[in-house]
Amino acid sequence: MEKTKRTTSVSELIVRKREGDRLTQDEIRSLISGFMDGTVADYQMSAFAMAVYFKGMDFEETVAMTLAMRDSGEIVNLDSIRLPKVDKHSTGGVGDKVSICLAPIAAACGVAVPMMCGRSLGYTGGTLDKLEAIPGFRIDLSIRAFLAQLQKLGCALIGQTGALAPADKRLYALRDVTGTVESIPLITSSILSKKLAAGIDALVLDVKVGRGAFMRTESAARELAGSLVRVGRRAGMRVSATLTDMNSPIGYTIGNALETAEAMEILHGRGPDDLRDLTYALVAEMLRMAGISRSEAGALRRINQVVADGTALERMRQIVEAQGGDPAFVDKPSELPLARHRSTIASPGDGYITGIDPLELGHASMGLGTGRLRVEDVVDPGAGIRLHAQVGDRVRRGDPLATLYASRKGLLKPGAERATACFRIGRRPPPAPSRIIETIRR
Amino acid sequence: MEKTKRTTSVSELIVRKREGDRLTQDEIRSLISGFMDGTVADYQMSAFAMAVYFKGMDFEETVAMTLAMRDSGEIVNLDSIRLPKVDKHSTGGVGDKVSICLAPIAAACGVAVPMMCGRSLGYTGGTLDKLEAIPGFRIDLSIRAFLAQLQKLGCALIGQTGALAPADKRLYALRDVTGTVESIPLITSSILSKKLAAGIDALVLDVKVGRGAFMRTESAARELAGSLVRVGRRAGMRVSATLTDMNSPIGYTIGNALETAEAMEILHGRGPDDLRDLTYALVAEMLRMAGISRSEAGALRRINQVVADGTALERMRQIVEAQGGDPAFVDKPSELPLARHRSTIASPGDGYITGIDPLELGHASMGLGTGRLRVEDVVDPGAGIRLHAQVGDRVRRGDPLATLYASRKGLLKPGAERATACFRIGRRPPPAPSRIIETIRR
Repeated sequence: MEKTKRTTSVSELIVRKREGDRLTQDEIRSLISGFMDGTVADYQMSAFAMAVYFKGMDFEETVAMTLAMRDSGEIVNLDSIRLPKVDKHSTGGVGDKVSICLAPIAAACGVAVPMMCGRSLGYTGGTLDKLEAIPGFRIDLSIRAFLAQLQKLGCALIGQTGALAPADKRLYALRDVTGTVESIPLITSSILSKKLAAGIDALVLDVKVGRGAFMRTESAARELAGSLVRVGRRAGMRVSATLTDMNSPIGYTIGNALETAEAMEILHGRGPDDLRDLTYALVAEMLRMAGISRSEAGALRRINQVVADGTALERMRQIVEAQGGDPAFVDKPSELPLARHRSTIASPGDGYITGIDPLELGHASMGLGTGRLRVEDVVDPGAGIRLHAQVGDRVRRGDPLATLYASRKGLLKPGAERATACFRIGRRPPPAPSRIIETIRR
Repeated sequence: MEKTKRTTSVSELIVRKREGDRLTQDEIRSLISGFMDGTVADYQMSAFAMAVYFKGMDFEETVAMTLAMRDSGEIVNLDSIRLPKVDKHSTGGVGDKVSICLAPIAAACGVAVPMMCGRSLGYTGGTLDKLEAIPGFRIDLSIRAFLAQLQKLGCALIGQTGALAPADKRLYALRDVTGTVESIPLITSSILSKKLAAGIDALVLDVKVGRGAFMRTESAARELAGSLVRVGRRAGMRVSATLTDMNSPIGYTIGNALETAEAMEILHGRGPDDLRDLTYALVAEMLRMAGISRSEAGALRRINQVVADGTALERMRQIVEAQGGDPAFVDKPSELPLARHRSTIASPGDGYITGIDPLELGHASMGLGTGRLRVEDVVDPGAGIRLHAQVGDRVRRGDPLATLYASRKGLLKPGAERATACFRIGRRPPPAPSRIIETIRR
């Protein structure tokens, strides 16, 4: 009887959302708790998500959804950590290894970085997969070990535990196979519910925009960023969102070991300019939110110092060692094991590289084994693509454009064809690109 | 592997429909066959249905959906029946007992009526529940017995077998709890797939419009009617659709035994005018489609004759007897057992009845036990409401408006309050109503 009554009212809630009505906080909370206790069926939740896709949710509804999903599981208590606790989250891009260098730099500057990373499905592995390219590195710390390391080193990098915001985990899995991913209120509540459950004080978001990003247009990315910032604040967490360009791959590498090595280069004061600029800008935002630096200039001075004097690098050695990895690779990132079969693609003509399609390059990398299509797929840590030239560089016919790495030789040829097609070569140099578009703080 | 590939493409189909794309016949067929074999999950199908709610399906898609659902189960072969085989289907109204008198009249006129009826959820029972108010009447004939009776009497009344269009049965159950019922292409394919699988030559539809109907506005009803007629014809069946008014209950009764008795009255040449007019108009349409009568006037002459000379009544006796029921009730319908507790409501004032809210009266009847909210609910055959006055009648304060029948005394008082509130009484008589709005034939 109770069950049927619940079902009836679920169907009414779906109809009301379908008609564009605003649901109350209690209604949204009962939807999520019903979803968790089984009285709201998956087929009802997916129909609801599709209705939200078409009719949206307003600010209050999105806040209610976020809090209801936050409360669907455990909430980490980080009160024992005295430092300001700030995490960074990216909506995902091709070649995005920022987290790996950002975390130790921010920790070295005095922020506590309790970073929960994902194993995303897609072109390349998530940050977790990249970290696991370091032999021995473990991401499955207990909460106790996580807290102890955070206390000691100001940073720990672990996998998103299933105990936090389980409603989001279930809803996301459903949205992924029902064509209901692309909804700003649903994306907002998904990202924020997990981060709120992680017990942090503030969150710096990197909202990617462009052909290699989930948000293709600047206006859509700006809308998402605004939603994340405002809903986050109402839900009790300081949030800022930086819009960054994702129309070409970040840095020169795609693939797990390749990207981890490139991120380590930043800690050595080397590495690509775009990756450094992006990392520093996001750390600066973290320092601002943590109350450590008042101005961006002050933050950048501090960041430059901890990199220049080796503090950030030393912090990374400690983190890697604490999590079971071999710290020697922090000092010699180029020795991280790479796949044995390699093939270099050459420029088909003379001119300037005016574009490198990040989406297609991501697919090419995927084909080499860097990512996973299904949860059960195994990621190849040594596979990937290393660029020899980036957008704006001048190339001559025959110059190397990129080297592909694969564990199976047969993957190289199709990968090479696909990768070659990603490069656009023109007669004039393109305008100088900048990764940072804008930071939205309210 | 195969399963995952299928799932991926399902999610792409959902996204394409969400974006308003047109799906091909093969895509729709694979969706329905995947739904049946389990590779398309319920949560995907409900999200798809919600996308269809918002983006619709065009004519070709609706035809493909109809045929795919028809082909999801058995298809009855009625080739052994020489007479033209015509069924009637109503979208459902309050007090709609037309099928019960229509079937024997049409059969008496020379049409084969292989009628498959439902046990609808809602205000009152479906036609099956009404027929079962006749002691002994059985609706679970085997296909063999069904065919033999159809051959002999030109009519058999049975329940919709689960073997026909099972995809529709599953999809409808899903739509019912996911806010996706109200979609013209989905309603069209649902109705037609079952009727096509039943092997009939032609279908006469009664599309109700008004406050007691699923379609509230004439324009929505007209759109549905046009869709049913055109999609039906393309799918290989002649279809006509008559729009009829459902702003007041049909006849004077709501409830299973009460309605069956009232329908029997029509066969005796008695009973309410609106019920007779509606029944005759729909039978006339059946005769026209069967090629038995060329004009409506000719059809009505034939109908009047089979009622006047007792042929239709005799046919009903034979049908009831063949299906295990007691034919004595055909002759004395007023003796059908009714619930023992009764209460009569009186007019609160003087004037003309300008309206009787069919939806509210349906709910009041429901509260007395005439319908079911859940599949497992048991319908009370003897419960219901008998009106003593209809729209247009003059009443004085204290005149009886209706008598309520219930098996539990406690149900009468709330029912009486609710039923009283359904009557609108005004100073001037309302315009004379007509049930028939228009017949759409192409």
